[in-house]
Amino acid sequence: MKDLIVLKVGGSVITDKKSEKPKANLKNINRIAEEISEAYASGKFDLILVHGAGSYGHQIVKKTGIDKGIKNDEQRVAFAETQRLQNDLNSIVTKALIKNDVPAMPLQASAHAIMRAGRLVKFDLEATRGFLRSGLVPVFYGVPAFDTEQACSILSGDQITPYVAKELYARKIIHGTNVDGIFTADPNKDKSAKLIPLIREENFEKISSWMSGSSAVDVTGGMLGKISELLDVAKSGIESQIVNALKAGNVKKALLGEKIGTVVVR
Amino acid sequence: MKDLIVLKVGGSVITDKKSEKPKANLKNINRIAEEISEAYASGKFDLILVHGAGSYGHQIVKKTGIDKGIKNDEQRVAFAETQRLQNDLNSIVTKALIKNDVPAMPLQASAHAIMRAGRLVKFDLEATRGFLRSGLVPVFYGVPAFDTEQACSILSGDQITPYVAKELYARKIIHGTNVDGIFTADPNKDKSAKLIPLIREENFEKISSWMSGSSAVDVTGGMLGKISELLDVAKSGIESQIVNALKAGNVKKALLGEKIGTVVVR
Repeated sequence: MKDLIVLKVGGSVITDKKSEKPKANLKNINRIAEEISEAYASGKFDLILVHGAGSYGHQIVKKTGIDKGIKNDEQRVAFAETQRLQNDLNSIVTKALIKNDVPAMPLQASAHAIMRAGRLVKFDLEATRGFLRSGLVPVFYGVPAFDTEQACSILSGDQITPYVAKELYARKIIHGTNVDGIFTADPNKDKSAKLIPLIREENFEKISSWMSGSSAVDVTGGMLGKISELLDVAKSGIESQIVNALKAGNVKKALLGEKIGTVVVR
Repeated sequence: MKDLIVLKVGGSVITDKKSEKPKANLKNINRIAEEISEAYASGKFDLILVHGAGSYGHQIVKKTGIDKGIKNDEQRVAFAETQRLQNDLNSIVTKALIKNDVPAMPLQASAHAIMRAGRLVKFDLEATRGFLRSGLVPVFYGVPAFDTEQACSILSGDQITPYVAKELYARKIIHGTNVDGIFTADPNKDKSAKLIPLIREENFEKISSWMSGSSAVDVTGGMLGKISELLDVAKSGIESQIVNALKAGNVKKALLGEKIGTVVVR
């Protein structure tokens, strides 16, 4: 049996995240589709892709507040429209992959997922297992989903990724982001910041003290919380790798096993 | 509790079915979206919509044979592309509905459905129930789905419709088709053919003899088989109505309870 890799590509990579209107970054989408195709053609791994929403989701959700629940007809229509927009973005992403001969099967998580107060509580992966066994590449994406407490909440790609990876015994998760990895400090503010190539439980405390410094404030924009999450995933035996997907070649390299960016292990 | 109506709109109504390339019939889609909106605004019923594939599905499926299973890489890619095309058609349909203030929630059945040798064997409707309770209008559509025996088979709108109607205790199913209803003979070939306004088990035998005539051949193009299916649905207490959705006003009239076309009851 081949190793399973779950590749998450952020909304900031595949869309123009700051655009008021939904706007896909076709250049990045096409380049990453080619990289995935080249790596997948090696036949060395099974693959699940998860992508974010970027400007297809954040603006409409922020404007209508549907992530906090549904209370009126306007929000009901916004719920449906938010889902429709995610399907449109997913169609652009899977079209690029299919053009490159990747059997990229769109999978709408909210067709069956159940949330409770914003957390995923039920998500049946039997069909997904079938698609993998049949040699397809399931493609999930962030969606608005049914929530038992507030009718609607957001099932983000960042929630889908570890859930699917654990349930399907993935070997590793690759996070294709807009940063080079995890640094000792915020590299945009501190020129002495250094990339941390390997994080494991044993050095987490040291890293944590580097990052928060003497002020005990997380200066890296919530990166510490992120690392905690990845260490939690690592406890299930799943390696995480954070790479910069804006830079050509990185996604392909990570898929083929190169140790670029930051790797988080048990 | 409001009555639940399941409205199935055929692929021949919302697409140019004979087009070699996928081609939506925007005029029909927009008109029917307006009719649904006007009827739904009455607040008299809950609604589930199911639509067919038409030229978004039949051509690619026929060309690649994926309905009979997946055997090679080309078919794997065709499987994914067929799903992607259905999502595109669904996006056009739901966009028109949303524009008319109908909270039309796209639902990809193949994200979780399991087929066996072409028949639907597992389909979890818990999220769908949640959407209905939250005041949304779930919109299903025909899709290629995972099949335990042949990797892929087609989960058509015609399979989804009675399954969902039975599981969710629908009051009636409306079939928006390209014919006026069920006739005593093929109206295109026989000018004396008469519309049958009401079919029930007691008059099925008589109707059956009208339709097959002395030749014992079903001259109405499989319509007898169709009636058998509808009578089977009627046994679950669900009325079926066949109307011509190409004619303006019919979908709205049927949703509001007018007895046009052919009605099939227990």
